[in-house]
Amino acid sequence: MQRIKLTLAYDGTEFSGWQLQRGRGDRTVQGELERVLAQICEGEVRVHGAGRTDAGVHALGQVAHCDVPGKRADVPWQRALNSKLPDDVRVIEAAAVPDDFHARFSATGKTYTYSLWLGSRYDVPQRRNFSWACGPLDEEAMDAAARCMTGTRDFKCFQNVGTPVKSTIRTVVSITRGPGLFPGETDWVFTADGFLKQMVRNMVGLLVAVGRGRFAPGDVARIIEDRDRAVAYSTAPPQGLTLTRVHYEPLPPCR
Amino acid sequence: MQRIKLTLAYDGTEFSGWQLQRGRGDRTVQGELERVLAQICEGEVRVHGAGRTDAGVHALGQVAHCDVPGKRADVPWQRALNSKLPDDVRVIEAAAVPDDFHARFSATGKTYTYSLWLGSRYDVPQRRNFSWACGPLDEEAMDAAARCMTGTRDFKCFQNVGTPVKSTIRTVVSITRGPGLFPGETDWVFTADGFLKQMVRNMVGLLVAVGRGRFAPGDVARIIEDRDRAVAYSTAPPQGLTLTRVHYEPLPPCR
Repeated sequence: MQRIKLTLAYDGTEFSGWQLQRGRGDRTVQGELERVLAQICEGEVRVHGAGRTDAGVHALGQVAHCDVPGKRADVPWQRALNSKLPDDVRVIEAAAVPDDFHARFSATGKTYTYSLWLGSRYDVPQRRNFSWACGPLDEEAMDAAARCMTGTRDFKCFQNVGTPVKSTIRTVVSITRGPGLFPGETDWVFTADGFLKQMVRNMVGLLVAVGRGRFAPGDVARIIEDRDRAVAYSTAPPQGLTLTRVHYEPLPPCR
Repeated sequence: MQRIKLTLAYDGTEFSGWQLQRGRGDRTVQGELERVLAQICEGEVRVHGAGRTDAGVHALGQVAHCDVPGKRADVPWQRALNSKLPDDVRVIEAAAVPDDFHARFSATGKTYTYSLWLGSRYDVPQRRNFSWACGPLDEEAMDAAARCMTGTRDFKCFQNVGTPVKSTIRTVVSITRGPGLFPGETDWVFTADGFLKQMVRNMVGLLVAVGRGRFAPGDVARIIEDRDRAVAYSTAPPQGLTLTRVHYEPLPPCR
């Protein structure tokens, strides 16, 4: 048996998310990987992802691991998998790792990028599956709101119902705003030691509500302290979100 | 009757090109526009495009015109069309123009952009419908080759069979290379007074053949002079190509 670490990029548009849904016909990234691995290994291989991205969410640096039979240890995994995978998911890197490496439990944190299209409509339909058209926005107000969202806090207000977790306390190391790929796009980059279910999309939902003037930046600290998901702002749509990196090194200090 | 000029952006991935194919079920940009215009105008409206983009080719600045009934002259056309069009085609601008404006015959030239992905594989599947993965390439050799492709020449060697034209002489004003949207992408920008059928894709095919060392930059002048499409290099695939602008002002001099 040999443990393999896979770094993956995918266009989430036509996937029902990362996670294999047993007994359902949905197309998932994990499902495609396990299907191809079973062909190559002539037997079932489980794939463990670092994060379960939602339907429509993309990745440039998702990480997963799997255990392949010893007799397959020398397969050139990147090439072998890419030759069989559909063209909306690619293995960027494949590396043999020690048995105690775990894509999820060894991770020290993750970075997600959310792309906002600042026009009110999708003037560039080429970007409709990769950004959220929600402008115009007051970006300075959003910067001020973002500063209230970093640090070690109870982020329960940003957690959607679903998978139960022991604690809703997370450390958001940084939230930065920079130019996006297209003129008119802004990329928001979130790094934390972990994210609750749909936490980034809910943070973006609140940031955009601030950018639209529905909340003042000063409301954000109170909203977080209230720990109440029912406050009226919406979860940002999935297509703007990309899992850009999974960290296995110590995270930088909060800023 | 009022003539309307439409500036259009579309993601060509799921279109069988611009041109309506009568009697066939193919989805085309012209077909979608005429369908929606017929609903709004309660009668048939023909749409005339500046250029017929192929299946899979995109646009950020396609131009078309159409004549709408006088009683519809005051419709806010951009909003009205966008509210009914599918989300992979958008009207960027709609303007009333004089009756003698013609999207194709009034044009002085066009600009196309072709995106090359310099990795040999699509490491970023998000770009698989918007660039051609053909690297690594010798870009300096391609620059030298491109310099032999500008000016007023008989470009018959770059014309694929299809629509007959009176003359295969065109003036290529400029071919420039610059960074693309993603790191690892290069954009080639072609401006000419007009392009023959699949001319840009054939020029890119030859440029890439030079970049791969199959031809020397010095071969390009001879290939053009020979006027023979049968020389062995291929037409670049459609998905890297975008019609970025149709010009109605005098073009700059060749460079």
